[in-house]
Amino acid sequence: MTILKYEKKVLSENDRLAAEVRREMTDRGILCLNLVSSPGSGKTSLLERTLGALGKELRMGLIAGDVQTENDADRLRAAGGTMVRPIVTGGACHLDARMIIEALKKLSLDGLDLLFIENVGNLVCPSSYDLGEEMKVVLISTTEGDDKPLKYPGMFRRSSLMVVNKIDLLGHSEFQLARVKENARAINGDLETIELSCRTGEGARRWYDWLRQRVSHKRA
Amino acid sequence: MTILKYEKKVLSENDRLAAEVRREMTDRGILCLNLVSSPGSGKTSLLERTLGALGKELRMGLIAGDVQTENDADRLRAAGGTMVRPIVTGGACHLDARMIIEALKKLSLDGLDLLFIENVGNLVCPSSYDLGEEMKVVLISTTEGDDKPLKYPGMFRRSSLMVVNKIDLLGHSEFQLARVKENARAINGDLETIELSCRTGEGARRWYDWLRQRVSHKRA
Repeated sequence: MTILKYEKKVLSENDRLAAEVRREMTDRGILCLNLVSSPGSGKTSLLERTLGALGKELRMGLIAGDVQTENDADRLRAAGGTMVRPIVTGGACHLDARMIIEALKKLSLDGLDLLFIENVGNLVCPSSYDLGEEMKVVLISTTEGDDKPLKYPGMFRRSSLMVVNKIDLLGHSEFQLARVKENARAINGDLETIELSCRTGEGARRWYDWLRQRVSHKRA
Repeated sequence: MTILKYEKKVLSENDRLAAEVRREMTDRGILCLNLVSSPGSGKTSLLERTLGALGKELRMGLIAGDVQTENDADRLRAAGGTMVRPIVTGGACHLDARMIIEALKKLSLDGLDLLFIENVGNLVCPSSYDLGEEMKVVLISTTEGDDKPLKYPGMFRRSSLMVVNKIDLLGHSEFQLARVKENARAINGDLETIELSCRTGEGARRWYDWLRQRVSHKRA
């Protein structure tokens, strides 16, 4: 019981800080997306592609969270990211709003269109922590099971978009696109879906258009 | 600070219960393995194969943990598992020793050779919770990144065996076997490795032999 009370206190403090982040993003007209998934679903690959395709069109900031190493941040810099901040959680299984506030201090937000937050690879814990994002984008890859939305409902319920990655590997497992969508809809009727392959680029245009549309909506 | 204190209290209570489980397993000569991985690395598939191959030779109990649904337990029953107990954590990101003690009450342990505990798909939190197992077995699949041991060191440090699954998909991504082994060894010099494909069965014999050897060692 006492533990529950402390957990609530931690979460409400997090909500207060997340509201601060959200206010700043709104004031500056920056679209902030929180990317969540299992380890290895392709969050960093998706951001690499996005930097390559939209890097000249949109100004993107990137916060890359990892339990250990700055590997993801290094990959994003190599892919052309000029505004990249790593967060090494040192064991923690999720990012929280305080970490974002600290990271934002070291990131120039002037003229930014988009801020991507790449969360720790974990389908459970990050779902409980609001980071001040406008939306959560959940990635799932075709090499995982298509029942993931049912097994990790919290994350799929709190996300606005599901990106199904690695469609180039469809047919190499029992994973079925129709089934993952059906399972996702059962959890969250409003969840949009985009299917793509970060490896081949197939389907990526819909993701870019989705981003463009959200950014222009934010500016309006 | 207060939170840290409560976390320590929770963990030490967990250690006490885990020691109870461990004692019972030792007394009964049961090899208890805690299977951990990202969601979708193939824990359930590995157990399905193992039931099919060794079901007549070894008596296996299976505890299948999931955040939501009993899908994994259902799959294990369909694969011939006669002693299967699901644990639905209802949101929690890991199994703990208390859950195992409750599940064991409903499982007949008489004559059991092996008890598999399939943890929640999560490379972070389950690493902190001792379940009374003899060893942790960590799965990683070739469709994830080969830098996972570096990014989630806690789990790879606390595991005794790394099973690299989906070797039938090698070459479909940048994943390199040599690199994942090198990264794993950098974290844990004692970590054994077995490479296999749960889909095709390639390499599975080494896993079966590994299990047989450990079981007979336990009996001796």
